[in-house]
Amino acid sequence: MSYLDQISEPTLLLNEQIARANIRRMAEKARRAGVRFRPHFKTHQSKQVGEWFKEEGVKEITVSSVKMAAYFAHHGWTDITIAFPLNRRQLPQIAKLAPQITLNLLVTSADDVAFLRENLRPPVHIWVKIDTGYGRTGIMPKDTVALDAVMTELASTPQHSFCGFLAHAGHTYKTRHLGTIASIHEQTLEKLQALKARYAPAWSELELSVGDTPSCSVMDDFTGIDEIRPGNFVFYDLTQNQIGSCTLPDIAVAMACPVVALHPERNEVILYGGSVHFSKDALSLPNGSTIFGLVVPLNEKGWGEPLPQTSVISLSQEHGVVHTTHDLMKHFELGGLVGVLPVHACLTADLMKGYLTLDGKRLEHLSGVV
Amino acid sequence: MSYLDQISEPTLLLNEQIARANIRRMAEKARRAGVRFRPHFKTHQSKQVGEWFKEEGVKEITVSSVKMAAYFAHHGWTDITIAFPLNRRQLPQIAKLAPQITLNLLVTSADDVAFLRENLRPPVHIWVKIDTGYGRTGIMPKDTVALDAVMTELASTPQHSFCGFLAHAGHTYKTRHLGTIASIHEQTLEKLQALKARYAPAWSELELSVGDTPSCSVMDDFTGIDEIRPGNFVFYDLTQNQIGSCTLPDIAVAMACPVVALHPERNEVILYGGSVHFSKDALSLPNGSTIFGLVVPLNEKGWGEPLPQTSVISLSQEHGVVHTTHDLMKHFELGGLVGVLPVHACLTADLMKGYLTLDGKRLEHLSGVV
Repeated sequence: MSYLDQISEPTLLLNEQIARANIRRMAEKARRAGVRFRPHFKTHQSKQVGEWFKEEGVKEITVSSVKMAAYFAHHGWTDITIAFPLNRRQLPQIAKLAPQITLNLLVTSADDVAFLRENLRPPVHIWVKIDTGYGRTGIMPKDTVALDAVMTELASTPQHSFCGFLAHAGHTYKTRHLGTIASIHEQTLEKLQALKARYAPAWSELELSVGDTPSCSVMDDFTGIDEIRPGNFVFYDLTQNQIGSCTLPDIAVAMACPVVALHPERNEVILYGGSVHFSKDALSLPNGSTIFGLVVPLNEKGWGEPLPQTSVISLSQEHGVVHTTHDLMKHFELGGLVGVLPVHACLTADLMKGYLTLDGKRLEHLSGVV
Repeated sequence: MSYLDQISEPTLLLNEQIARANIRRMAEKARRAGVRFRPHFKTHQSKQVGEWFKEEGVKEITVSSVKMAAYFAHHGWTDITIAFPLNRRQLPQIAKLAPQITLNLLVTSADDVAFLRENLRPPVHIWVKIDTGYGRTGIMPKDTVALDAVMTELASTPQHSFCGFLAHAGHTYKTRHLGTIASIHEQTLEKLQALKARYAPAWSELELSVGDTPSCSVMDDFTGIDEIRPGNFVFYDLTQNQIGSCTLPDIAVAMACPVVALHPERNEVILYGGSVHFSKDALSLPNGSTIFGLVVPLNEKGWGEPLPQTSVISLSQEHGVVHTTHDLMKHFELGGLVGVLPVHACLTADLMKGYLTLDGKRLEHLSGVV
């Protein structure tokens, strides 16, 4: 029986071969660059996909919540960074997890360090979040007053270990030029290296960690960096393709959606698959239009190339509207299935709560685990 | 202990008193107008919230998926319309559910009717979906060829009952003028009444069903209509407020989010609460800015009015960025909680998988039920 026969509702297909190739490529790049590969698991959030990383030699991982850290600790991961600002309200959960694994936390202020010193007894490792230009969170490299204050607090917090400076150059997501990714990456490296030079006399062991998928996909030079934390690359998606991080054949997930209505009079097709399945993330195309996915034909071995001039042009809660051409309407039939490459794989996987591989295996996602 | 003490992660608060008032107001409007009230349960998807409707005398409901129909049938609902185009791939699930309840299905073509006649043995009720101007799905009222074809198929499908014509004037969501809602509503009524006049000689019992929250909130005249199916009104949200369907105090849900970082230098606050909690639906304001929520102070009794000049200006996977004023920064403290009124309550509830009421009860949402 084909995996397609199992599908009656929107289902997230995962091509294991492509995902494993994406993992292998990034693991090899990290080895070549001599940096620790600490992939971000927020994209897949799956114990089974985690095993594919183990097979590539990965031992340290990144997550974005305390709950996700507890999930992967439960599945045998022993060195986990929660790459999210310290959430003080989860102190009990953190205190419970800390003795079980090597737990690495982020702080964004001297006050955070003082809070951990005074309130968290089990030892943790501490990274200081640096804002290298994304402008979301972290201390600005030029804010030496705030930085000195953090380092002073760290010096009087012997029960927790200071690891180093961690940055997420998320502003690479806003560009569509490889040259801009390169310059963002170089600026990030320069800023972090300058910080290391400033504080290395007192903290000789301090490390530097960076991590966005565009920089890690496109760049090869990680001079001075100790670890990389990309996440999305395991699946990639249309956003990463538009940024230039990947080719379309590198995308490892596609949504299978039933065709529920045909509108040949306007070359439109209604899919069962809406914003509760894909999320509402959209992609602006150079021609000014906005799309929510590209349509691919499904077959026994996976999916083919996107149909030309065909895309998901709108999503409501459960409906997806595909616009195509007169000639391509014949690819769609009531009760049939088509594939859709997602705009943002992380959000789609989170909503879908699990995966179906092309050999018919169901893999879990943390959001589907009660 | 206050309900607030339970909260360590993003949590969807539900003010039961406001939701019950919203339900009562719509139930009374339906009674006054002499129409059946068949509320859409896709917004709350909760067995407990469903009970509040039962207490207002509601006996028939609308859902948007076969799975949702099965869930509410399991919780005692005996007359359910699946207001979504027939998904042929779920025929086995439909055939299983049909003998248990009065199951009402939508068809969008003569072909759908023939499919049900030939493939579905247990009797169901059939509504024909009409496109009164939204342009998503359904048969256009002027397409008399398609309509006549559907009616011909229905006439030769005696095992299933034809109920009538059903429309969703979703184009009311695109307007921000009450006058436009009124004219869309009147056109919808006129188009449906004309269809009824055309087919009533052969189908004297045929009914008309309409259902968007803006029309049902704003309008009082439902002449010729037999049932209304609004859904979002149970909670309302910022989109409905901007449309004019509700006031801000009518909004029955708010997300409680921990404050995890402060950036007084740019009057920004980082919340634990991102696109995996809120969804990525955004609201464009008249001043050209885009927001993902308004910030409200939380207290023992619920939440207050939105803080002026303060909104969620961006969302990433787990982070929300609030921009506020210099003076209002003092409302935010590390480890504290603030509330956020959501842009689109249906998607937020679906992502949050459950609710916390102000008296500390946890209510379920279908998306959190395995």
